[in-house]
Amino acid sequence: MNLLNTEQAAAFLRGCSDVHILIHRSPDGDCIGSGYALYAVLRAMGIRARVCCDDPIPPMYRFLTEDAAFEDFEPQTVIAVDVADLQLLGGLREQYEGRIDLCIDHHISNTGYAKSNYWNPEASAACEVLYALFKAMQLTLTEQIAMCLYTGMATDTGCFKFSNAGAETFAAVADLKRSFDLPYASLNRLLFDVKSKGRMALDARLMQSVRMSADDRVALLYLPYAWMEELKVSSDETDGVSNLPLQIAGVEIGILVKEQSEGGYRVSMRAGDHADVSAICRQFGGGGHVKAGGCSIAEGQSDAVCNMLMAAAEATLQS
Amino acid sequence: MNLLNTEQAAAFLRGCSDVHILIHRSPDGDCIGSGYALYAVLRAMGIRARVCCDDPIPPMYRFLTEDAAFEDFEPQTVIAVDVADLQLLGGLREQYEGRIDLCIDHHISNTGYAKSNYWNPEASAACEVLYALFKAMQLTLTEQIAMCLYTGMATDTGCFKFSNAGAETFAAVADLKRSFDLPYASLNRLLFDVKSKGRMALDARLMQSVRMSADDRVALLYLPYAWMEELKVSSDETDGVSNLPLQIAGVEIGILVKEQSEGGYRVSMRAGDHADVSAICRQFGGGGHVKAGGCSIAEGQSDAVCNMLMAAAEATLQS
Repeated sequence: MNLLNTEQAAAFLRGCSDVHILIHRSPDGDCIGSGYALYAVLRAMGIRARVCCDDPIPPMYRFLTEDAAFEDFEPQTVIAVDVADLQLLGGLREQYEGRIDLCIDHHISNTGYAKSNYWNPEASAACEVLYALFKAMQLTLTEQIAMCLYTGMATDTGCFKFSNAGAETFAAVADLKRSFDLPYASLNRLLFDVKSKGRMALDARLMQSVRMSADDRVALLYLPYAWMEELKVSSDETDGVSNLPLQIAGVEIGILVKEQSEGGYRVSMRAGDHADVSAICRQFGGGGHVKAGGCSIAEGQSDAVCNMLMAAAEATLQS
Repeated sequence: MNLLNTEQAAAFLRGCSDVHILIHRSPDGDCIGSGYALYAVLRAMGIRARVCCDDPIPPMYRFLTEDAAFEDFEPQTVIAVDVADLQLLGGLREQYEGRIDLCIDHHISNTGYAKSNYWNPEASAACEVLYALFKAMQLTLTEQIAMCLYTGMATDTGCFKFSNAGAETFAAVADLKRSFDLPYASLNRLLFDVKSKGRMALDARLMQSVRMSADDRVALLYLPYAWMEELKVSSDETDGVSNLPLQIAGVEIGILVKEQSEGGYRVSMRAGDHADVSAICRQFGGGGHVKAGGCSIAEGQSDAVCNMLMAAAEATLQS
């Protein structure tokens, strides 16, 4: 991977023109925040820029994007932000592959597909990487840019709750809070607390049907597809459902089994302090990280599938 | 109020001896964290100290207190931390009233009952006030002290989510994270995410029976006392239930009606961005803040009480 230091990355930004900024498909708070923050900074430097994404921006993030007005133009420079892998460009891959001049990212798994990289795998979020760069460049930020950067760091760290929220994350947010009197608490409520009425009903129904075993150390939720239709909950609204089982005191392995509209099941597993769920998921052709894994089960009666997964989880805790 | 500056507060701590540290009844993460952090610092300075509380420390906070070993002794110095008002000392008030030499606090409502005060109403937590003092004194902290201070700041800000989490809060946590490699994420999970199996079932049942009106801008949960007994949920486990209705998208006024074991109802109201619930609660002899209020209803059928409260909330939104 061709790495740039901060000085080189700053020189790159100062020297670029007509920039297409690429963010990943299924855009989240961090890629939207970093993409639109970079857009605003380039515009303020007098550089034409736009953000390109294969999927629409989810409505909850529109407050980050509504100030932007994009022109159509041929790019002279292409910069990817928060994109670990070319696959994550979705339908934009074909157009940009081999033409990406700079990637700004924080993923340890970044495949190094860009010509140059400004990369800090210790950072919680691409927005934290960008903040460090903007600070080194002594740029004057705006409220809108601060809101973008805050949103990226907040969403990628679960509002500063996860282990990736490091000292530099907190120091960056301290800087932003000193300079910008944004409605942080309302923003956090919007980003982390508010659920649709349907999602709330779905969570309640799931929690009432939780199956537990192994002295309550394994908890499984089964989500029939019919519930999604009945409660009018879309698939992208179910982010975070897989974290529910682990919220029960004492649970070491939490499992979510989602029946798919086309048949079969998608399984997410989460581990508490001790278990390794990627090993369990690998037994079923899946994988992931120690604390968060997944797999797909092509067929079977739902009860049989749930029992099989719980048995595998119980066996892991006993070994 | 007799206020000390940082230098004076530091001199006070260096000069004190045989210290009783008072924290408030129904102890929470901030008073436990600040009380035990101050205890550990004084012990490290060779000063005898103990923490005094009218209630037992809740089991979830034992990790902050298990290293402490208290002797019985007559105090030469009495310091209250995170205690806004003498009433909050509960049964300890009689013994200490008029004898409190220093109060270290962050509550804007502090009544100034102590002889001297080290007070910063801008701080998120008493632990933030203490951290600033320890830093100015250039004390060497331990992991245990860092854990106490982190816990106080995290719990009083809802894991850095509320509006009281300021730039100085983030800067203090950045300092702690730079110096101490604590299991912050596990700690956050314990402090914020984990619920008992019974509480989880209770939340699910409550959310399934939510009543909504005024175009889904008012949401009410009714909690019959029998559910607490059936699901074996204690009253102190229901902290936070009153925040549930406001998590539904679009809700402006959230109401929780808790049937009391002795009859009657305890009502908590929460407001979104616009409504003022203290005004509604005052109609029923209660009060509180604009965004969080409460009242008691002595008698009535539960349905009639719920309808009355919803009608009052609807009227507020229409006015």
